[in-house]
Amino acid sequence: MDYESLRDRYSRFLSRRDEGRKPITFWDGELPSKDLICLEAGMPNEKMFPIKGIDLHLVERPFEDGDEDKVSITRYEEPVEMPIARALQYSEVRGMQPMVNFCKRIVEMINKPVYEHWDVLMSNGSSDSMFKVFETLCDESSTVLMEEFTFSPVVSNVTSTGANCVPLKMHLTTDPREQGIDVEYMEQLLDNWHEIEEYRHLNKPKLLYTIVTGQNPTGMTLSMEKRRQIYRLAQKHDLIIVEDDPYGYLTFPPYDPENPMKNVYTDTENPMSIDEYLQQRLIKSFLTLDTDARVIRLETFSKMYAPGLRLSFIIANKFIIDRLLNLSEITTRAPSGASQAIVYATVKAMATRETAYQDENDRMFYGWIRWAMKLAATYTHRRNVAFKALYETDAYKNHLFSVLEPSAGMFINVKINWPHAKPTDMKSSLDQLDKVLVNKGVKVVLGYKLAVDQKFSMDSSGFLRFTVAYASHDDQLIEGCHRIANGIQEYLGH
Amino acid sequence: MDYESLRDRYSRFLSRRDEGRKPITFWDGELPSKDLICLEAGMPNEKMFPIKGIDLHLVERPFEDGDEDKVSITRYEEPVEMPIARALQYSEVRGMQPMVNFCKRIVEMINKPVYEHWDVLMSNGSSDSMFKVFETLCDESSTVLMEEFTFSPVVSNVTSTGANCVPLKMHLTTDPREQGIDVEYMEQLLDNWHEIEEYRHLNKPKLLYTIVTGQNPTGMTLSMEKRRQIYRLAQKHDLIIVEDDPYGYLTFPPYDPENPMKNVYTDTENPMSIDEYLQQRLIKSFLTLDTDARVIRLETFSKMYAPGLRLSFIIANKFIIDRLLNLSEITTRAPSGASQAIVYATVKAMATRETAYQDENDRMFYGWIRWAMKLAATYTHRRNVAFKALYETDAYKNHLFSVLEPSAGMFINVKINWPHAKPTDMKSSLDQLDKVLVNKGVKVVLGYKLAVDQKFSMDSSGFLRFTVAYASHDDQLIEGCHRIANGIQEYLGH
Repeated sequence: MDYESLRDRYSRFLSRRDEGRKPITFWDGELPSKDLICLEAGMPNEKMFPIKGIDLHLVERPFEDGDEDKVSITRYEEPVEMPIARALQYSEVRGMQPMVNFCKRIVEMINKPVYEHWDVLMSNGSSDSMFKVFETLCDESSTVLMEEFTFSPVVSNVTSTGANCVPLKMHLTTDPREQGIDVEYMEQLLDNWHEIEEYRHLNKPKLLYTIVTGQNPTGMTLSMEKRRQIYRLAQKHDLIIVEDDPYGYLTFPPYDPENPMKNVYTDTENPMSIDEYLQQRLIKSFLTLDTDARVIRLETFSKMYAPGLRLSFIIANKFIIDRLLNLSEITTRAPSGASQAIVYATVKAMATRETAYQDENDRMFYGWIRWAMKLAATYTHRRNVAFKALYETDAYKNHLFSVLEPSAGMFINVKINWPHAKPTDMKSSLDQLDKVLVNKGVKVVLGYKLAVDQKFSMDSSGFLRFTVAYASHDDQLIEGCHRIANGIQEYLGH
Repeated sequence: MDYESLRDRYSRFLSRRDEGRKPITFWDGELPSKDLICLEAGMPNEKMFPIKGIDLHLVERPFEDGDEDKVSITRYEEPVEMPIARALQYSEVRGMQPMVNFCKRIVEMINKPVYEHWDVLMSNGSSDSMFKVFETLCDESSTVLMEEFTFSPVVSNVTSTGANCVPLKMHLTTDPREQGIDVEYMEQLLDNWHEIEEYRHLNKPKLLYTIVTGQNPTGMTLSMEKRRQIYRLAQKHDLIIVEDDPYGYLTFPPYDPENPMKNVYTDTENPMSIDEYLQQRLIKSFLTLDTDARVIRLETFSKMYAPGLRLSFIIANKFIIDRLLNLSEITTRAPSGASQAIVYATVKAMATRETAYQDENDRMFYGWIRWAMKLAATYTHRRNVAFKALYETDAYKNHLFSVLEPSAGMFINVKINWPHAKPTDMKSSLDQLDKVLVNKGVKVVLGYKLAVDQKFSMDSSGFLRFTVAYASHDDQLIEGCHRIANGIQEYLGH
């Protein structure tokens, strides 16, 4: 599909508000050529910045402070593609070219779209990415499907455009083939949309929003088979798929209760190779099935580098990327150049260790992926620590809760096994349990707070979400898990 | 006015879209207390960031690379209020508290509002600030007044909300009492709104957008007397004033043709004191007249530190700030923590030189203001260089152009003195002149491109805007000015 075909095909998905957005610029946006004296743009000379250099002190792996790497960002020389004179100047709204190229490389190497005219737009964190996507595609006439449990702030991104959210039932199970969106439910819903009492006042959905791997809050991952089925449904009913994937690199090997601390990432005898990680541990994006250019993928540096950078990127067909860029022009413009330069210089430093590769782009890619593996190893270790801690409690042994074992990501869900019938008022039951937990000294998130439609999901919302990400060390995580179990025991004991 | 009164008073200014915005959060947003194990928010532990320290190499003044200051941002210790563990973590949507406090301090010391319930919201550069302000206040029913020449991208910020822009005539003169918005025109327009053929289909304006000091593109500054008159008009006609002030710190003392390189900022015998700068050189914001809490002021670190930081702040009454914050919650969330930490650590470093002050907040404020003075001195020097270069050309001596002397900011406007009548087609005349200039090797911006309504301002748009900000050294600026003059000579010679 060339650009014109993409425009013809996808214009109908644009929101009413997209039409009204006509950025005005009075400059060419071209960088000055050598002979031309450019007195045009109101850009301060870089020697008017109070800063002329930035050194980054990097660590080799999470939680290790041994030998450190120092890498410098100087006014003109380092990194040569993105020194301070560029990074702290006004820069390209779509992201600085070297950074965009690096993001494209990640996509190409791992999730290469099956069509040609795709592109990347950098953005200010996934919240900003989502705002831009929904603002460009949704208005009062739109209906958006999403997992019944989700990162609930995204609901407000959708509803603030005037659009409506409709939840999809999920299979909450550790079975990797079954977990995640209930595809049959989704099929029935779409096939019979106009006959369904509850939704007939809404237009047929035009978007599916899904957190595909290590879903927040459930930790579920859509299998490739499910991805193929969902993609076929999207084709049949002409849906755009917004694939949010902040946790995709943090996949967990299966947990072995016989050997709870086993970690295939760091196995001393047979550590995982980078190819195994790329080929076997990472789940391919919907992009790899996307013959129609209907997938919008969201990635972020928040979990893989640091959330405070507010740096993310969006992958979609070139026409949609242009519409998103059009919105960026009148809102954020470029993401922070400081954030971009920090990530870029870090990746360049990681590249220096990858001496096995000839090409600098390969070195950067593999250097970054090696870091991703180290993070995945850390999360896997913490998953192990948390599971072990939960499974050794009396409350678990007394069957007062079960653990919804996550396949990736930062979250573990503890499902309460109500001793008799499920509570008639799940919300207030969870609120009461929460009070007990806070008294025990642990703070978690209650399942119903993560439901798109609390009524729709009330029966299945009897769980607690907690994260393995933030604890300062294993002992704190263990203590937190024990407090959760003890709190449940105390609460259900009443 | 307490919060309730502000809400009662200013709710009617909110856009239709503001109403639909209901952010959903499932977390408390409280930082974990000492005894509570917080397994709630999906925050990676700071030891999972690949970075543990950042050193900044600072310069003491623009274009000087002598002894440098090195200042460190470490994982936990420095700066104690904003180390990496905080700055690169998810942080407060309104901006990190120490940074917000510093911005508040700037406002309090220079432009203290005359009412009590004002607040500050940090944002991702002034483009983002403007988007948030107009998106929150404007919709299809709104009319916005602005200077007839302006930073034209702001027009698209307004029109993309559905609102209409109406230009205000300006006095383009070097007389400090007269320059800027034609207040009589504005008064007539507002008093007779419903009788004016051209505008009667529009609602009466509810907003004035103005770049108050060193206006872009004209370099004009509104005198205090004009500010008082405009504020009274805003009261009479109930307008919100959006005061954009990116250049306010860069004020120019009058130019002395007898002594073109004179620079009162750096006069060796009698250098300007910090109090003189604050009391005499800076023009007070509309905030200082704002008995009604109707002013929204926009400041940015783009010109004072570096544009690539994408860091700005908005000052307004607490009710309006809350509505803007509400929008930030579903869009950008916090600005880059890397950018915030870089500015904050820099200001802390600048503070160490201010040993005359007891209080750390005073040291930070005066340290920052001393930097602002150094920048203003640099801009004044460049203004001098450019004026001298322009005034020594034959084209100037032959009265082919005049210079609209700016009172502040980054821009100088060269007004073409058309030898006979003004061109009937100003746009194509300027386009032709532009071609000659590019051939001469200099790039400027054409006046008509900066008009809100090209037809309305066609007669007065026969000028070229150029910046003194970007040239790499004085000689390049001089050469650029000569090329402009030679180009005009060649073009008008035909």
